[in-house]
Amino acid sequence: MNIHIKNARVILPGETAEAAQKVEKTDLFIEGSRIAAIGKAPEGFAAEKLIDGTDKLVSPGLINAHTHSYIEFMRNCADDLSFMDWLFGRIDPIEQKMTDEDAYWGACLAILEMMKTGTTCFNDMQMNILQTTRAVKESGMRAVICRGLVGSGNDEAGRSRLEQAYRERDAFADCDRLTFRLGPHAPYTCDEAFLRIVAEEAQREHMGIHMHLSESKTEIENCQKEYGCTPIELAERCGLFASPFIAAHCVQVTPSDMDILAEHGVSVVTNPASNMKLGNGFAPVPEMLKKGINVCLGTDGAASNNSLNLIHEMSLVSLIHKGTHASPQCISAEETFRMATINGARALSLGQETGSIEVGKKADLAIFDLKRPSMQPVNNPVAALSYSANGSEAECVIIDGVVTMEHGKVLTMDEERIYYENAGIMERLG
Amino acid sequence: MNIHIKNARVILPGETAEAAQKVEKTDLFIEGSRIAAIGKAPEGFAAEKLIDGTDKLVSPGLINAHTHSYIEFMRNCADDLSFMDWLFGRIDPIEQKMTDEDAYWGACLAILEMMKTGTTCFNDMQMNILQTTRAVKESGMRAVICRGLVGSGNDEAGRSRLEQAYRERDAFADCDRLTFRLGPHAPYTCDEAFLRIVAEEAQREHMGIHMHLSESKTEIENCQKEYGCTPIELAERCGLFASPFIAAHCVQVTPSDMDILAEHGVSVVTNPASNMKLGNGFAPVPEMLKKGINVCLGTDGAASNNSLNLIHEMSLVSLIHKGTHASPQCISAEETFRMATINGARALSLGQETGSIEVGKKADLAIFDLKRPSMQPVNNPVAALSYSANGSEAECVIIDGVVTMEHGKVLTMDEERIYYENAGIMERLG
Repeated sequence: MNIHIKNARVILPGETAEAAQKVEKTDLFIEGSRIAAIGKAPEGFAAEKLIDGTDKLVSPGLINAHTHSYIEFMRNCADDLSFMDWLFGRIDPIEQKMTDEDAYWGACLAILEMMKTGTTCFNDMQMNILQTTRAVKESGMRAVICRGLVGSGNDEAGRSRLEQAYRERDAFADCDRLTFRLGPHAPYTCDEAFLRIVAEEAQREHMGIHMHLSESKTEIENCQKEYGCTPIELAERCGLFASPFIAAHCVQVTPSDMDILAEHGVSVVTNPASNMKLGNGFAPVPEMLKKGINVCLGTDGAASNNSLNLIHEMSLVSLIHKGTHASPQCISAEETFRMATINGARALSLGQETGSIEVGKKADLAIFDLKRPSMQPVNNPVAALSYSANGSEAECVIIDGVVTMEHGKVLTMDEERIYYENAGIMERLG
Repeated sequence: MNIHIKNARVILPGETAEAAQKVEKTDLFIEGSRIAAIGKAPEGFAAEKLIDGTDKLVSPGLINAHTHSYIEFMRNCADDLSFMDWLFGRIDPIEQKMTDEDAYWGACLAILEMMKTGTTCFNDMQMNILQTTRAVKESGMRAVICRGLVGSGNDEAGRSRLEQAYRERDAFADCDRLTFRLGPHAPYTCDEAFLRIVAEEAQREHMGIHMHLSESKTEIENCQKEYGCTPIELAERCGLFASPFIAAHCVQVTPSDMDILAEHGVSVVTNPASNMKLGNGFAPVPEMLKKGINVCLGTDGAASNNSLNLIHEMSLVSLIHKGTHASPQCISAEETFRMATINGARALSLGQETGSIEVGKKADLAIFDLKRPSMQPVNNPVAALSYSANGSEAECVIIDGVVTMEHGKVLTMDEERIYYENAGIMERLG
């Protein structure tokens, strides 16, 4: 559909990758799935839909670079517990009892929450690919989805999960909003031999990889005991970094770990809320940014956050590092914004397609209402998103050129039904 | 007005002060300004207004225990700057040019933002009492407002500001939603002799005190140089703690400082966003709670937060201390909730009147919509407010028995006009 967004404040990229974004009052023109022009209509453009941009802020859609959508109904069911009590006492037992339909409705609720807070693309680690791709297709979302893998080099289970992963790739064929990756879960659930197999498969099949790395002190200690190296060194020596790689968490990393990440162009997804909530601490985000590592932002799952609102994560990532570094200049509003948008796109190998508002890119947009107390007065819209917004200001969402949310209402999903089904799941499993 | 809230989930106090809150499906009955009954209607009760509580969560209204409402229009006008550049380069020059009307519209925007995110009472440090009380009266808010004081013992200026403060108290006489306090600004803007005068005046006139204390390392260093003691020791020896006292910030406090605070029953307002944003760090909140200090929550002003959304502050105070203490059990969802409600009421000497839902207390309520992705499924409503909510779920607000917001619309203020006026102020002063 041809869409004309008229007279809006639009967040455009700065002159260079590190320059502050520019906010201009201008018009946007969308043809099909892509941004056709900024400012002046393309020749012969006939708008099928006009969106009044007065008092609106048009932002590239936010990119949630690490989550687990299918367990969304576990929100607030396991709080203030130690990691072990949390995982093995609450999360795992519920997960064991989940059906495919549960995973579908969980993913629907996750997508609903993300869309309503301005996210247009998410990176998911999954145990139920088919249900999540189903929810993504129906909702109009963009997603990169990886099959979670656990295994040891010698076992049948690991090999059979890889084969399952290949079968699941068929679900991605008919939807170009979907990208497939491999998801070796973590160094403590995959052994070295299995990680080497995953690395080879990723190379052979040209797939990206998404993996939890260096999340907790226990993980580091156990990795040192078992392999005599850090999880990042282990991943490097297994050849995992030869493929496009997103490392989730990286809370406990050494300077030499960071050099390895920078050298291989590994992207890091930081998940501030989850890392604090589970007592893992603060990732050295400013140090990683200084080393030139592409750092992006994620929420992690609702069981450990407890929200998939990336706007919340934006305020966290800037505030906590100003706090830990005793420096108000540490991570600016503009850097925060890039972490939530273009850096996420690059991490997902989608930097040419989404993450910023540029002619030729996909029309993945979040339109925020400036007529909210949190956004008033309009002194600096990028700072407003990074520090003042709560996420509810997202009013209209366009993904792949399709309006999926308008006036705060998601058009592609049945909100009431999603609430009803998720409540039922927790009544049964909780 | 007699109000009947029917069939809602209501957050009630636990059996003891430290016990977890109970959430019950029940009815609430309001007569005049107070909660008349919970569960069963009082004899002869005739509702003039019925509120359907289905899928709603009724919470005590939140209490923002430290802010500066009149400078709300400075939101996002001075970000990512060192404290000195922030204060003297941006904030002060704008404040010098402010008119009375500017202060009024600033306070209106602040109140609008707070009400829309479930706050029903705030504690304000002010340089323009008359305009803020005007905004409070019109909006239906509850507030404790202190006259900001700076001075040295010998100067006329300090004495004349105290006299001004007494004259301003008249503005409080006709509105029992308003309480007056004295606000000696900080140890670096008031000298010891002046603080002693303030302490005596507070005792003589039975007034509470609200003061910035132990916010930054520079403050501590300068206090040690000038007085050979910590700011908290200075406040104690000046006799300030003999009156009901709220200490804002207390980021840099020693164990012995905490003992002094505990001994005198001083309440501490922690402002996590502001303390991080200005690079001051993390207050030892878990340690203060352990010592039995009444810790409550504040946003500080919009120039250093940049939002007056207490729900955001709730998630911060729990998350950051779990992070700094590497403990998921550090500050529970329930403790967080108490900091944002009853602890704030106690700090403001309003513990008998507001801060919890109990028969006989003022009907100061925030009603949250549970049919939002962030609140679904309803596994634990208190954890949902502390960790998952973004503040926009507040749908209805009742203060002093009066419905001031309904269906997300503030009934007592002209939202459009407030945006218009605040935009104009920054065009003129920014």
